[in-house]
Amino acid sequence: MRILIVNVNTTESMTETIAEQARSVASPSTEIIGLTPRFGAESVEGNFESYLAAIAVMDRVMSYVGPYDAVIQAGYGEHGREGLQELLDVPVVDITEAAASLAMLLGHKYAVVTTLDRTVPLIEDRLKLAGVHERCASVRASGMGVLELEEFPERAVEAIVEQAIEAVIRDKAEVICLGCGGMAGLDQLIRDRAGVPVVDGVTAAVALAESLVRLGLKTSKVRTYATPRPKKIVGWPFKL
Amino acid sequence: MRILIVNVNTTESMTETIAEQARSVASPSTEIIGLTPRFGAESVEGNFESYLAAIAVMDRVMSYVGPYDAVIQAGYGEHGREGLQELLDVPVVDITEAAASLAMLLGHKYAVVTTLDRTVPLIEDRLKLAGVHERCASVRASGMGVLELEEFPERAVEAIVEQAIEAVIRDKAEVICLGCGGMAGLDQLIRDRAGVPVVDGVTAAVALAESLVRLGLKTSKVRTYATPRPKKIVGWPFKL
Amino acid sequence: MRILIVNVNTTESMTETIAEQARSVASPSTEIIGLTPRFGAESVEGNFESYLAAIAVMDRVMSYVGPYDAVIQAGYGEHGREGLQELLDVPVVDITEAAASLAMLLGHKYAVVTTLDRTVPLIEDRLKLAGVHERCASVRASGMGVLELEEFPERAVEAIVEQAIEAVIRDKAEVICLGCGGMAGLDQLIRDRAGVPVVDGVTAAVALAESLVRLGLKTSKVRTYATPRPKKIVGWPFKL
Amino acid sequence: MRILIVNVNTTESMTETIAEQARSVASPSTEIIGLTPRFGAESVEGNFESYLAAIAVMDRVMSYVGPYDAVIQAGYGEHGREGLQELLDVPVVDITEAAASLAMLLGHKYAVVTTLDRTVPLIEDRLKLAGVHERCASVRASGMGVLELEEFPERAVEAIVEQAIEAVIRDKAEVICLGCGGMAGLDQLIRDRAGVPVVDGVTAAVALAESLVRLGLKTSKVRTYATPRPKKIVGWPFKL
Amino acid sequence: MRILIVNVNTTESMTETIAEQARSVASPSTEIIGLTPRFGAESVEGNFESYLAAIAVMDRVMSYVGPYDAVIQAGYGEHGREGLQELLDVPVVDITEAAASLAMLLGHKYAVVTTLDRTVPLIEDRLKLAGVHERCASVRASGMGVLELEEFPERAVEAIVEQAIEAVIRDKAEVICLGCGGMAGLDQLIRDRAGVPVVDGVTAAVALAESLVRLGLKTSKVRTYATPRPKKIVGWPFKL
Amino acid sequence: MRILIVNVNTTESMTETIAEQARSVASPSTEIIGLTPRFGAESVEGNFESYLAAIAVMDRVMSYVGPYDAVIQAGYGEHGREGLQELLDVPVVDITEAAASLAMLLGHKYAVVTTLDRTVPLIEDRLKLAGVHERCASVRASGMGVLELEEFPERAVEAIVEQAIEAVIRDKAEVICLGCGGMAGLDQLIRDRAGVPVVDGVTAAVALAESLVRLGLKTSKVRTYATPRPKKIVGWPFKL
Repeated sequence: MRILIVNVNTTESMTETIAEQARSVASPSTEIIGLTPRFGAESVEGNFESYLAAIAVMDRVMSYVGPYDAVIQAGYGEHGREGLQELLDVPVVDITEAAASLAMLLGHKYAVVTTLDRTVPLIEDRLKLAGVHERCASVRASGMGVLELEEFPERAVEAIVEQAIEAVIRDKAEVICLGCGGMAGLDQLIRDRAGVPVVDGVTAAVALAESLVRLGLKTSKVRTYATPRPKKIVGWPFKL
Repeated sequence: MRILIVNVNTTESMTETIAEQARSVASPSTEIIGLTPRFGAESVEGNFESYLAAIAVMDRVMSYVGPYDAVIQAGYGEHGREGLQELLDVPVVDITEAAASLAMLLGHKYAVVTTLDRTVPLIEDRLKLAGVHERCASVRASGMGVLELEEFPERAVEAIVEQAIEAVIRDKAEVICLGCGGMAGLDQLIRDRAGVPVVDGVTAAVALAESLVRLGLKTSKVRTYATPRPKKIVGWPFKL
Repeated sequence: MRILIVNVNTTESMTETIAEQARSVASPSTEIIGLTPRFGAESVEGNFESYLAAIAVMDRVMSYVGPYDAVIQAGYGEHGREGLQELLDVPVVDITEAAASLAMLLGHKYAVVTTLDRTVPLIEDRLKLAGVHERCASVRASGMGVLELEEFPERAVEAIVEQAIEAVIRDKAEVICLGCGGMAGLDQLIRDRAGVPVVDGVTAAVALAESLVRLGLKTSKVRTYATPRPKKIVGWPFKL
Repeated sequence: MRILIVNVNTTESMTETIAEQARSVASPSTEIIGLTPRFGAESVEGNFESYLAAIAVMDRVMSYVGPYDAVIQAGYGEHGREGLQELLDVPVVDITEAAASLAMLLGHKYAVVTTLDRTVPLIEDRLKLAGVHERCASVRASGMGVLELEEFPERAVEAIVEQAIEAVIRDKAEVICLGCGGMAGLDQLIRDRAGVPVVDGVTAAVALAESLVRLGLKTSKVRTYATPRPKKIVGWPFKL
Repeated sequence: MRILIVNVNTTESMTETIAEQARSVASPSTEIIGLTPRFGAESVEGNFESYLAAIAVMDRVMSYVGPYDAVIQAGYGEHGREGLQELLDVPVVDITEAAASLAMLLGHKYAVVTTLDRTVPLIEDRLKLAGVHERCASVRASGMGVLELEEFPERAVEAIVEQAIEAVIRDKAEVICLGCGGMAGLDQLIRDRAGVPVVDGVTAAVALAESLVRLGLKTSKVRTYATPRPKKIVGWPFKL
Repeated sequence: MRILIVNVNTTESMTETIAEQARSVASPSTEIIGLTPRFGAESVEGNFESYLAAIAVMDRVMSYVGPYDAVIQAGYGEHGREGLQELLDVPVVDITEAAASLAMLLGHKYAVVTTLDRTVPLIEDRLKLAGVHERCASVRASGMGVLELEEFPERAVEAIVEQAIEAVIRDKAEVICLGCGGMAGLDQLIRDRAGVPVVDGVTAAVALAESLVRLGLKTSKVRTYATPRPKKIVGWPFKL
């Protein structure tokens, strides 16, 4: 099985981290292909950058040559997943929804700890649209920007742990979702410190994508995610 | 006052229709500038095309030279408004929300009559995110594609009227919103046939944009729509 | 165009303040007529007074002689708007909903800062019925009674600013609505202090009422707001 | 124990029917006092009439001389209950909420069958505000006006039964609430025909009011229903 | 009239307290029969114990010999009420819903003060399923286990009062429900201390059960609570 | 890895079918152990039987000797999962939620096709509590009892296909969940007939259980699913 995992920003090192994290849980027979968008922001922390990422991810996936069985969009709370679902037949898994789906199997309420406060409403809106917000206790910001996670890993862990504990105590969360693709690999550390299960979106998405493929399940094509009608499109696929 | 009204598709004639409709209700001192995206689909009828339109609209607005007081995004149920709100200080009005906002002042429940069935979930989701879905009785599809509205105007009117009447009788709607920028100008015709107020998103958006400008109200910059942080962005602005 | 703006309490000076505020944003060709109910409380701060105001407003509007194009009910969170909509063909705009409608175009969440804590549930209920509560971050009380706003303007500003800032910081509001007709004129002051857009219901309602009239939109008469059936009514219109 | 049961319209014969129905289930030691408003419509079938009834009911109760232990407002889906709760210390029970409260103990979902279609949204809104709408399968109109219930009792029963059966079959209601004070006494007849429990609001309200009195429970006075502040009120109490 | 009131735990002394409390408000002609399950936990403070209680209560009721008119399940937030409703024709009243139903007649929002924090989600879930959660301000834990209520009555009162006051001040509750059958009898004490009406589930359930019987209302048998189909059941009724 | 999959009814042949279905998708290294409750109904089609199943499943799992890594409760819409989560440290997956979780990754809305109409409210309630009901288009009954699925497989397929197609056309479902453990194995047949993805709860649960185990994720023990407190429990574990 081959799974494409697409970063939402243009920072190659983050694509590598994400792909590595994905490989750490993938089945031996699963090949993980990490992809970096050809355009967009070095980190995605808001709607403009996220919308740009949405089509950059579609552009990157559509320009990938060769077969694959599933696609993972590795941005937390980002736009675009529905577009990929229209363009593809294979399953598309967003790490935001993947983390929430598994978290809901582990506790009565879950919380998300993300990067900057400005991204909180995006994440909440994406969880609402995905239909998994009902049992979300809170989305909390650590105050660390996406790129700062890599730069200051120790400070990042402290900041995330602090919010995770607040989420458990004040918001009554029983499970924590790591709200950024760049937090991949921190789950066990946070779990030990916060005392509750911690779900990383990337590994959750790998498990779910493999599950869907194994069960022979594909995106429904009857209505919302039907293949786009043939029509004249100017400037697509992008040639940059 | 100058208001930019941006079409979401690349069909110039539709931009003209929309701008003309906008001018028909604008104050004498308001200048309406119609803009067509430089890339994207000739009509937007789904998520992929809508996401592409989202950045094409941002691209077009950002490359517009000269001052303006407000921006109207003239696509029904499309993505992208939040991105524009981050990039700009002036008010941004989406015709989907504009129509719903005024409709809610006129009746207990409103319905939307749109083009193809596949766009219904997008519109519902956008209404939910905008916080104006609670009193939406239904979103109904006329079965007419966006471009067919121009091509077969009489059949379009029949199809829209039919669904409008169904919405009133079955779904208990008391007001109808025209769910496509390309329906601009049909409101009075439909109103006469369906017997209820009909709100056209384009004219509603012009009135609301002028209102916001007149009251000195601008997009809040404290959180969700804060200006994007300065960072490295590859391939933006687009050079096609 | 002539717009009737009806105060909900019997304090004439407040009617004047409201009408003056309305005139400050009305189009030059719009005539604003301020009306004071013939009976009711000097200030409306609860359900009993609000119900009394509901019919006092209807009584005052129905006894007004001469044509008009729209009616504004200038009480925040008060009962009665639906009754006016049944009795009239012209648009009826309530300042509670007007403020919320415009606030939702400016930020992801809005808060209302009102007078006394006891009025908070009324306002919340009215926002719910109006279908604009989903994105309401909070309704907060300044602790100042309606008449104290006029009597102690400086203390009022301080108290409102304090709650506005709390709403932004704690409740994550991005826009503030001034939750009392008697706060008319304070919007710019509060905006400067709180750092977010501030929407005043009276000016918002004027802009919306003018918008509806300009667009030729009237209250739907098919169901909820159909004209009352002819029937025997004792003691109406009131003769006091 | 003495319970005041107040009709919302000015039709004396309906007050008598309601009071008689109340007496049929009241405890032997409970005295039922039927009251008719001094002003208002002969039947209440919409917002204007309902708002008028709201204060007419308050006027009638406040002008009643002598002690009493509870008040029942005997209009289905009408405004005003919150005002009475502010003015009084004794419990106030609205027949709309009383019927729903008991219905929810008897089945998974309940439906309301009321008079005219135009009153359906009022009833839905009142059920929402009362917090008992979640398990409401539907509110259906029989098409019979309030006064027609008395005039054409047989046709009324047929029309109500028809809608009750539709509610059970199509809307999956398991219990029916009779949605008009004027339907008092029809419950057993409808029950036999529709095959599900039928709750009459008047008798439900009597049982609940007696329950509250017996348990020594009174309206909370800490916030929403606190006694109105002392202030100048023009024209109240009404002198007609 | 004979009402069975079934404790959910196996502590006989608690059954007696509950039955005594029930008798204190029952009509003179009502006979209250207290029943203790034949198996299960000495106190119910979680899902496992609550599920066990669900069938233990059914087992106890089904093995009761002799006629009765209604059944009260006297556990706060426990599973099982729907099963009893299937097995019986007479009304079944759960104290959780009974308390909420009456509380909603007394104030705009109510709060529940219960025993241990771990039971809060169960109570919230039961209130949601019962359709009476909308106006629930909060469910708060006193930190006292069920059996500690009997053992340390003074400490229990202090802990409950503390949370009741917090619920009023912070969560804006206007009525308090006592969230444990073992709190029976504390209502007046808490009411005096917290300054708001306090509803005890046991007495509320007695009043409601008597009301239903008096009105001739029984559980609907058309769908959810239809009598179980005849089928082979191993090990039921339990013989321990 | 060893996964226990527990039937909710006492029909051994159904346990075998379920276990066989589970094995068909399990990883080669996963051992599937099918368990049949020691007591309860031969089929579970309502609340009484479902509550009985809840503890029968707990009884069976707790009396299983030997290690295991996860437990699957193989009843659609049944009670009890929360109890198992308290008693165990390993993940517990309910097929109702498993199917919904995967379905939500494949389409905008899903529907459930189940057995008898009387079980529909149970399923809806379980989906609500699980937080996955928001995107449920409908739950539809095929009219076939649980045991009839085995007895009349052809009629069952026809009845399920009919409802699946109705769900797609009328309710706008884009994915179908098979709403009964006894429908295991029918997914491909239904998929071919209905033209949309069909999710079988048993195989979905196996994939999710394996996923959780592989990712090292376990049930949170901080609040709702904390291990029961040590206390005196009469008659447990059951000895029948």
